Amino acid sequence: MAMLEKLLRLTQKARGDRTLEPLLESCRLLISERGQANVYALALKVIEGYSALPAARREAFFAALATEFAPEPETVLSAATQYAQAPTAQHLAVLTQAVESPRQELIRRINRAPGGTAMLLAMRVDLLGLRKGNPELNAVDADYLHLLTSWFNPGFLRLERVDWQSSAALLEKIIHHEAVHEISGWSDLRRRLQPDRRCYAFFHPQLGDEPLIFVEVALVDEMADAVAPLIESKPEAASAKGAKTAVFYSISNCQPGLRGVSLGNFLIKKVADQLKTELPQLKTFCTLSPIPGFVRWLDKTPAEDGEWTAALQRVAAWRQRHPTLAPENITRMPKPVQQDLLSLSARYLVKQSHEALGDPVARFHLDNGARLERINFAADLSKKGMKQSLGLMVNYLYDIGEVELRHQEFVNQKVSHSTAVRRLLKPQA
Amino acid sequence: MAMLEKLLRLTQKARGDRTLEPLLESCRLLISERGQANVYALALKVIEGYSALPAARREAFFAALATEFAPEPETVLSAATQYAQAPTAQHLAVLTQAVESPRQELIRRINRAPGGTAMLLAMRVDLLGLRKGNPELNAVDADYLHLLTSWFNPGFLRLERVDWQSSAALLEKIIHHEAVHEISGWSDLRRRLQPDRRCYAFFHPQLGDEPLIFVEVALVDEMADAVAPLIESKPEAASAKGAKTAVFYSISNCQPGLRGVSLGNFLIKKVADQLKTELPQLKTFCTLSPIPGFVRWLDKTPAEDGEWTAALQRVAAWRQRHPTLAPENITRMPKPVQQDLLSLSARYLVKQSHEALGDPVARFHLDNGARLERINFAADLSKKGMKQSLGLMVNYLYDIGEVELRHQEFVNQKVSHSTAVRRLLKPQA
Amino acid sequence: MAMLEKLLRLTQKARGDRTLEPLLESCRLLISERGQANVYALALKVIEGYSALPAARREAFFAALATEFAPEPETVLSAATQYAQAPTAQHLAVLTQAVESPRQELIRRINRAPGGTAMLLAMRVDLLGLRKGNPELNAVDADYLHLLTSWFNPGFLRLERVDWQSSAALLEKIIHHEAVHEISGWSDLRRRLQPDRRCYAFFHPQLGDEPLIFVEVALVDEMADAVAPLIESKPEAASAKGAKTAVFYSISNCQPGLRGVSLGNFLIKKVADQLKTELPQLKTFCTLSPIPGFVRWLDKTPAEDGEWTAALQRVAAWRQRHPTLAPENITRMPKPVQQDLLSLSARYLVKQSHEALGDPVARFHLDNGARLERINFAADLSKKGMKQSLGLMVNYLYDIGEVELRHQEFVNQKVSHSTAVRRLLKPQA
Amino acid sequence: MAMLEKLLRLTQKARGDRTLEPLLESCRLLISERGQANVYALALKVIEGYSALPAARREAFFAALATEFAPEPETVLSAATQYAQAPTAQHLAVLTQAVESPRQELIRRINRAPGGTAMLLAMRVDLLGLRKGNPELNAVDADYLHLLTSWFNPGFLRLERVDWQSSAALLEKIIHHEAVHEISGWSDLRRRLQPDRRCYAFFHPQLGDEPLIFVEVALVDEMADAVAPLIESKPEAASAKGAKTAVFYSISNCQPGLRGVSLGNFLIKKVADQLKTELPQLKTFCTLSPIPGFVRWLDKTPAEDGEWTAALQRVAAWRQRHPTLAPENITRMPKPVQQDLLSLSARYLVKQSHEALGDPVARFHLDNGARLERINFAADLSKKGMKQSLGLMVNYLYDIGEVELRHQEFVNQKVSHSTAVRRLLKPQA
Repeated sequence: MAMLEKLLRLTQKARGDRTLEPLLESCRLLISERGQANVYALALKVIEGYSALPAARREAFFAALATEFAPEPETVLSAATQYAQAPTAQHLAVLTQAVESPRQELIRRINRAPGGTAMLLAMRVDLLGLRKGNPELNAVDADYLHLLTSWFNPGFLRLERVDWQSSAALLEKIIHHEAVHEISGWSDLRRRLQPDRRCYAFFHPQLGDEPLIFVEVALVDEMADAVAPLIESKPEAASAKGAKTAVFYSISNCQPGLRGVSLGNFLIKKVADQLKTELPQLKTFCTLSPIPGFVRWLDKTPAEDGEWTAALQRVAAWRQRHPTLAPENITRMPKPVQQDLLSLSARYLVKQSHEALGDPVARFHLDNGARLERINFAADLSKKGMKQSLGLMVNYLYDIGEVELRHQEFVNQKVSHSTAVRRLLKPQA
Repeated sequence: MAMLEKLLRLTQKARGDRTLEPLLESCRLLISERGQANVYALALKVIEGYSALPAARREAFFAALATEFAPEPETVLSAATQYAQAPTAQHLAVLTQAVESPRQELIRRINRAPGGTAMLLAMRVDLLGLRKGNPELNAVDADYLHLLTSWFNPGFLRLERVDWQSSAALLEKIIHHEAVHEISGWSDLRRRLQPDRRCYAFFHPQLGDEPLIFVEVALVDEMADAVAPLIESKPEAASAKGAKTAVFYSISNCQPGLRGVSLGNFLIKKVADQLKTELPQLKTFCTLSPIPGFVRWLDKTPAEDGEWTAALQRVAAWRQRHPTLAPENITRMPKPVQQDLLSLSARYLVKQSHEALGDPVARFHLDNGARLERINFAADLSKKGMKQSLGLMVNYLYDIGEVELRHQEFVNQKVSHSTAVRRLLKPQA
Repeated sequence: MAMLEKLLRLTQKARGDRTLEPLLESCRLLISERGQANVYALALKVIEGYSALPAARREAFFAALATEFAPEPETVLSAATQYAQAPTAQHLAVLTQAVESPRQELIRRINRAPGGTAMLLAMRVDLLGLRKGNPELNAVDADYLHLLTSWFNPGFLRLERVDWQSSAALLEKIIHHEAVHEISGWSDLRRRLQPDRRCYAFFHPQLGDEPLIFVEVALVDEMADAVAPLIESKPEAASAKGAKTAVFYSISNCQPGLRGVSLGNFLIKKVADQLKTELPQLKTFCTLSPIPGFVRWLDKTPAEDGEWTAALQRVAAWRQRHPTLAPENITRMPKPVQQDLLSLSARYLVKQSHEALGDPVARFHLDNGARLERINFAADLSKKGMKQSLGLMVNYLYDIGEVELRHQEFVNQKVSHSTAVRRLLKPQA
Repeated sequence: MAMLEKLLRLTQKARGDRTLEPLLESCRLLISERGQANVYALALKVIEGYSALPAARREAFFAALATEFAPEPETVLSAATQYAQAPTAQHLAVLTQAVESPRQELIRRINRAPGGTAMLLAMRVDLLGLRKGNPELNAVDADYLHLLTSWFNPGFLRLERVDWQSSAALLEKIIHHEAVHEISGWSDLRRRLQPDRRCYAFFHPQLGDEPLIFVEVALVDEMADAVAPLIESKPEAASAKGAKTAVFYSISNCQPGLRGVSLGNFLIKKVADQLKTELPQLKTFCTLSPIPGFVRWLDKTPAEDGEWTAALQRVAAWRQRHPTLAPENITRMPKPVQQDLLSLSARYLVKQSHEALGDPVARFHLDNGARLERINFAADLSKKGMKQSLGLMVNYLYDIGEVELRHQEFVNQKVSHSTAVRRLLKPQA
């Protein structure tokens, strides 16, 4: 309640604000009966008003959305009581209207103006930043998320292959947004667009050539056990004709305003579908993924932990001997320590994926219905890779016929994994 | 409540139905937690299941949506009570989730499959037919309408000019869907696409080349007072260069499944905008519209009605003398009867537009913020025109700077009209 | 030489002509050294000048091209003598320049302006008309033909499928230009564009959406023996999936200005190629073609002609009994007369194709390397079909692996034909 | 004649060559009567044959084209004699056919195959290399040039703006082919594609996305006097709205196989036209061009040369003092030496442009009808710029209304120049 009061105070203050009040007035007019006939012009006014609002006034604006543009509690209660007494269509209609916050209609009408969708995404980026200190703004964000999820329905998205025929403007965005394995420039990018490498992105009709999310795929013989060979430059463009395996080695979001709108799952499956059609000889669809949470978890795990104590200590000792990490440290790690490391990572991924410290990448793929297939030693020797996971990477396997079942298992707190991973779960003495 | 019980019985019966039960089971799976990982395939299964459902089973299917896929009354009441006690973001989130019917999620997930949007429109056409006897199905329809309104947000639509460069497949649909002034064939259509006539349609990214709604416009010197000159064939294509007036003479919906999703208002304004940009010399934007409800109202109006009695009787007498209508009857109507007719139509449009018998076309344009500008005698001598309105047609004027105000007036039960119309409101003795 | 003198007189007269002389002056400037820097503007001037030239002055214009813009005989002779003495590269260069008529450069420069190509085609249509009375204009036409052949090189043409997705503007031109089996309107056309019927056209980059030539194809089970089933309307669109035979049943030129530029040969082969790729199950590529010259030849053939006398007389007698032709006359023709007719047509096609009265359609396909495969009785019962060939039609077979050889045979005065046709060549007693 | 004999010997040898003879046989077949029916397949065979030919055999191949595929001297002489006696259309037709070398038909037929045009360009690159030692191959090259000129007629070319929306594949080619002011990478390129810089290229329908020639333009306030400000990177993209002057600062050919086909003239005029339409406020169209021949000429000019002796000596002395050039040397050059340098360059450009040592860039623009407007000191301080012209650059002015006249003057051995340049023509004592 304290938070709510803070918002009410903020809203109160907003009333007298010379930059904010006109914007709120435009918002009120836009959703009014009268505004109906002129949505286009009024929505543009709101867009301009928000664009001109000083950053310091944004919190007060969203506070007003949270309080003034919220559903009326009494109206809601009365409608809910009626519905509880007689759950008829008419009572449901009254109830639904009572519960829907007026700011939903505001968001919908802003969306009608040209540039409206882009504006809503920008507003949400601001809101996500402000929300941290104000849990009451979650209600506003919930409305944004609800509508954006509806509008960025995968059925509305356009899947396009990105290649060397794509515009420089688009490719520049790909370079910029790549979040997993940095693209260092145009020639680096070019290698990732040759015939045996693929890149696919989702686009939304309302956002033109702005990519929403993209995935990079390597078409190779066997499930890859290290990332460097996938992205190293090659003198000659290889063909994809002989490839039997598609390795999804990078997936990056481009729109922070779409946080929480799940697109990656659908992207992976649609790309797998399309590759299968184009190249029927492909047998295996898997990832080569980082384990961004592994070292963080290791650092927080107690040194004594039953049968795992020995392994934990050996790895800790090795890490103390190598305070700064270099590729050659990793590659020269003694075999038994390697084995400990792999076992601990298997334990982390299988036992912790439903816990607070669980790995976000593991969660994403397991929830999509993939299986934890293999853990690879010395697979990512970049600085980031060594720091996050001591160079380990994971193959998650997408067996299209099984994803539904495996997703269900994950929901039921199980983590599907291969025999090889199961063996790792038994630590060395 | 009787209706609700009927639905529950229908639902009960559905449980054992060999064609329906598998479809409902697919629907349950599609919105289940497990279904999440396989939305694409499961949505296709629901689409196939519904397509294969015998027409006679559809009512039972929608009954199941109305009962089984509805919000839980107790859950709703408890959430509403909590929110009434403390209107926090968290309570609102719980409440919102409780109130949203599970069938909304079902509709959203169907929409993710290829062809999903088209399927939802087809389902809704069925539902609109069944709803008449079952007001309880309104709750289901409300969910369809809510989501379709969101997805067919004008901001997502593509406006395109339809002309002789358009595909034959599209033009054929225009011929088919024209609902106001029938297009009798390709050469008739061609005239309406020459440089001084325009046709614009809205398209949705998800429905490909399927038009949603289109409008036909004549670019002429002055506000047109009859429809024939606008659509009659001409040997030579005139240019639009000298035109000062854009007359919107026909607007037709193509998707019955979108009933209630308001697109016409936005279409007219967007086309006016585009024409204004292309042809800055255009000064007047108006319609030439039918009065489909006029004769229907005349037939139901009592013969004695104060100062209007004389006019009503003169018109009734003339109509008795001309039981079958022909163009020459109308054109030879005695001047005083003409005057009576015009006065009565003015009265009908100005006084009845907020009543049950009010004219739907008048309501549409007035609610859009147009003004009732002029009523034209002998303006539509087609059979339909004579039958519905004894040949009268109306010009509604769109003064872009005034639409907001006029819409507000209309909401406040007033009908904006010109001085000329005001004069007609005083009947002859 | 008389003709040449006529042209010179015409040219002389042109000098003083107030409408023609400025045009000729523009032509001279356009090909002058000075004109080089301003080709674009000067070519437009020539185009405007010719467009404005009264029809009656065109002959004088082309006469001037024939005389004034021709190579200089003395220069040519001197260059040829030099080359005969020493056939070096330098002498050849001098010779080539001497022989090329200045009007070739004129045509080339006209072609550089926007609309230049279309203008040259229009000029040539005029020239083809005037040429009949003036064989000396053949030299001018040869230059047009030479350059147009170079510019309408099949390698520069774009093959496109014409279907119901094509623009109405294009389809209207298809209806207009169909020269073999008239298209009576849009629904007639539609049938010819359904999945089991195809239409392909060539386009030139310089002429936009203007088709040059198009071919219509029926995808059917077996080699068709009558045209009606190919073009009759059908309630349902059949699929092309089961088809084993592609029947080219109509080929029409759209540009009279391209007469003599051979495109049909290349079109048939490119379409066959494309169909083969799309539908690998197609085994047979053939035509169903008219015999436009048959009756004309029959009428000029002497009544007494050795072993053919009896057949000629029987057919003549039948024709006398049926002075006006109706479909039922043909279908009820006595079997022996049918046989005579088929034999005579086989004789006409096999023996006369290299003669003056030879059939132009036969010549076209045989020269393309097709084989005379089958002659069909009562195959075209349209008025035109009965008048030209008493309802007979021919299948020419394109066996892609054999076309080169068969073309060579045709060049060597032989007509490839099947065993069935060979049998017809022996008349009944 | 010696050369011709060498070619005949080469041809003789070719007859027995196992790699060459089959290719020549394919060529013969392709232009034979029989080949007519199968041009497509036979042309592909010639293309494959030439592609597989070892580089060392190419000279023998072109020798065969020069001798075996040349016009017959006797036939030519006889036809020329006939034409000289009676210059009729028929005699001209015979003559034209006799003079046209069979290799022209060969080239035309190769061009019909897919990839034919690209192949002909590649062949010509080889031929241009071989021609240097074999003037007799000029006859073969003349045929290539004749036909390529016809096919790359500017009327057939597509002008396209190249910008950041263009494909990376195209932009990479622009970087590669830029021949005047090197583009050092993608960010360098990007600056040249911002709104106040333009790049336009010509494309040919037959060569897809392969640019033929492109020009770079800076939109600025005043006629630029140095190149660095035009291509230096800028933090912000400037707008072109205020610009009054379009400076063409670079023009580069991309197809060495098109040498001699004049495209640059037309490109400059078409781009000027397009810019004028888009930005009507543009008043001046000029270049900022290098003087690649200046230092070369200076080095060959005798030290004593009348009134120019003093200037020549002062410049020579300065050059001796600065054997290696650096930007600061140029910028610190004493004023009087600067003046000498400018005067000498004016003299070079005005007096030498029709001589052997004349500047090729000057010739190109003057022949296009431009005027020598201004010479700029220290305008290009790149290594290349200092080496070729001691940093000088030239503005040529395109006054569209005057180009025809000025081109004519240039043809008549005059060089149009401004008053400022005229003043420079008088050297200092």
